[in-house]
Amino acid sequence: MSNDIFTPEALEGLTSRVLIGMGASPESARAVAKSLVLSNLVGHDSHGIIRLVEYSSWVPTGQLVTGALPKIAWKKEATALIDGGWGWGQTASALAVDIAISTAREMGTSTVVLSRTNHIGRLGEYVDSIADAGMMGIAICNTGGEVVAPFGGIKRLLGTNPFSWSVPGVDGYNLILDFSTAVVAAGKVVLAAMNDKEIEPGALIDKNGAPSTRAQDLDDGGALLTFGGHKGSGMSVLIDVAAGILSGNMPAAISKRGNGNGTVIMAVDISRFVGLDVFRSITEQFAVALHDAGAPGGARPFMPGEIEARTKAKRLSEGIHVSRGVQQNIVEVATQYGVKIPEFGA
Amino acid sequence: MSNDIFTPEALEGLTSRVLIGMGASPESARAVAKSLVLSNLVGHDSHGIIRLVEYSSWVPTGQLVTGALPKIAWKKEATALIDGGWGWGQTASALAVDIAISTAREMGTSTVVLSRTNHIGRLGEYVDSIADAGMMGIAICNTGGEVVAPFGGIKRLLGTNPFSWSVPGVDGYNLILDFSTAVVAAGKVVLAAMNDKEIEPGALIDKNGAPSTRAQDLDDGGALLTFGGHKGSGMSVLIDVAAGILSGNMPAAISKRGNGNGTVIMAVDISRFVGLDVFRSITEQFAVALHDAGAPGGARPFMPGEIEARTKAKRLSEGIHVSRGVQQNIVEVATQYGVKIPEFGA
Repeated sequence: MSNDIFTPEALEGLTSRVLIGMGASPESARAVAKSLVLSNLVGHDSHGIIRLVEYSSWVPTGQLVTGALPKIAWKKEATALIDGGWGWGQTASALAVDIAISTAREMGTSTVVLSRTNHIGRLGEYVDSIADAGMMGIAICNTGGEVVAPFGGIKRLLGTNPFSWSVPGVDGYNLILDFSTAVVAAGKVVLAAMNDKEIEPGALIDKNGAPSTRAQDLDDGGALLTFGGHKGSGMSVLIDVAAGILSGNMPAAISKRGNGNGTVIMAVDISRFVGLDVFRSITEQFAVALHDAGAPGGARPFMPGEIEARTKAKRLSEGIHVSRGVQQNIVEVATQYGVKIPEFGA
Repeated sequence: MSNDIFTPEALEGLTSRVLIGMGASPESARAVAKSLVLSNLVGHDSHGIIRLVEYSSWVPTGQLVTGALPKIAWKKEATALIDGGWGWGQTASALAVDIAISTAREMGTSTVVLSRTNHIGRLGEYVDSIADAGMMGIAICNTGGEVVAPFGGIKRLLGTNPFSWSVPGVDGYNLILDFSTAVVAAGKVVLAAMNDKEIEPGALIDKNGAPSTRAQDLDDGGALLTFGGHKGSGMSVLIDVAAGILSGNMPAAISKRGNGNGTVIMAVDISRFVGLDVFRSITEQFAVALHDAGAPGGARPFMPGEIEARTKAKRLSEGIHVSRGVQQNIVEVATQYGVKIPEFGA
């Protein structure tokens, strides 16, 4: 492979070393690295290994307790609270998913809340695991940090508050919906600003509330907009309030903190209501109908999660491209912890 | 009051008489009438008493079993299935909400599925009741009947599949999100076509897949579009698959039926995670910040559910306007069952 194309194993290895350098246990480091590289694999590079830069910035402030391990604060009937101890959001989420699945297996459904967690990564990963267990999964996350204006407003009030939802799928992938309630994720605007690219119209306003496509306007006091007008804005409000308060992370407008991820995960055991084979068979028929709903001669519509599944297959086979800029950023972080990254020529 | 302005009690009374004429028990009729008029009260006239016309069309086909009463098919740990017996969706939903609340009180969270139900009315009503009980409520409904094209497609595939979500609120109203995953609800397009009004751009395509604002194009082989591009489309797909299959109502593309409402209702007891007084107090602070996020001198943004709460207060005080056309439609239905509507001059 060329200098800029890497296997997932290579990226997991170097990411893991940097995380251990930051103070993570080898087991936590492996889990976080695997989660980050999975985001690269499915095509969401904004949630991939570039996040090491952000995570590193949280170490000196004490926001990220790199050696902390998540634990079950309490579990009662069909509900549980996970205490992330301000450690790695990915390991806390993995524990929350395990508890959500085992509880829903026993109770039919479950709601698990994560408190005191840093960035949990890509929400879709967790509902994908729930779907793998034959269940419907819903996950919402108040991301902290006011960066999005509500519908009808111009001031920063909300986080980018993602919403994620899954059911078991067919053809090797689950049906996964995973989106930011902002038109574009903040991470993608930051990447665009770095690369001097424009943002699609309707996603951003400048500091005076005027529509903008200039990515840098976000840093210059502007705000992101919510998707889908009042509907997406309402979802973001509900996520900020529900996930923010249940988790103790607090809505962005109240906490004025930018790092914690207040998360609620729900699971429903499908087999209580219908056989999983029946569920899959009907979903497959539905997928056929959806694929056939395109314009004659045009591109066919995609099922939720289908594009990510294709990207994953392609990148597993062809490798993952990491830009020189991202390599350089990661090398700089690694150097702080005395970690060498020969994979990136350093 | 003038001939066209009515008190909720008057509308409930006449609606109830028509429903009894159709064969509903007095108790069912009262409950359905109250639910329909509540939609008028909160400003969603498309889900109000005009629905009597549609309901009446289902009686001769046997789709609507007017004397059927809903029952609990089974209840186990934190899950339950309600059998609507193809009776009134509103009475089945009320039972489902009761079970969702009592189960979540006991188990912390609950998931209740409604099977064999006709039109359940306005989804927001049910999550509002869950919020009244101090809980977070989520309700999804596969509406049956292919009328919406998926993102990237031009053929009718999906129902208008509404999504609804609530948490307890402040200032006399709960935070209620309740929207169609189509840009506009089908009922609103039908009303627009009746009144020869245009539909907003981006909501409709004609039978060739070309953008249209002509409401009549929906009846002429066109399709509605989903809100928020691929995000709203993905939500509609998940609702059709999850609520459609769990309930047995089937996704619209599979069942080719237009009437049943496959519904999933979830509740989470907030007090397991945080005191309800704390939840309300922080939500109130959040509402203050949101109201302050508007442009200087501009209109203030609204909280989810706030507009409906204001409309309800206004209509409770000033009465509900019912157009002559709607009155005439309802009189025609009533006449079929030998029911007089002196309130509408008949």
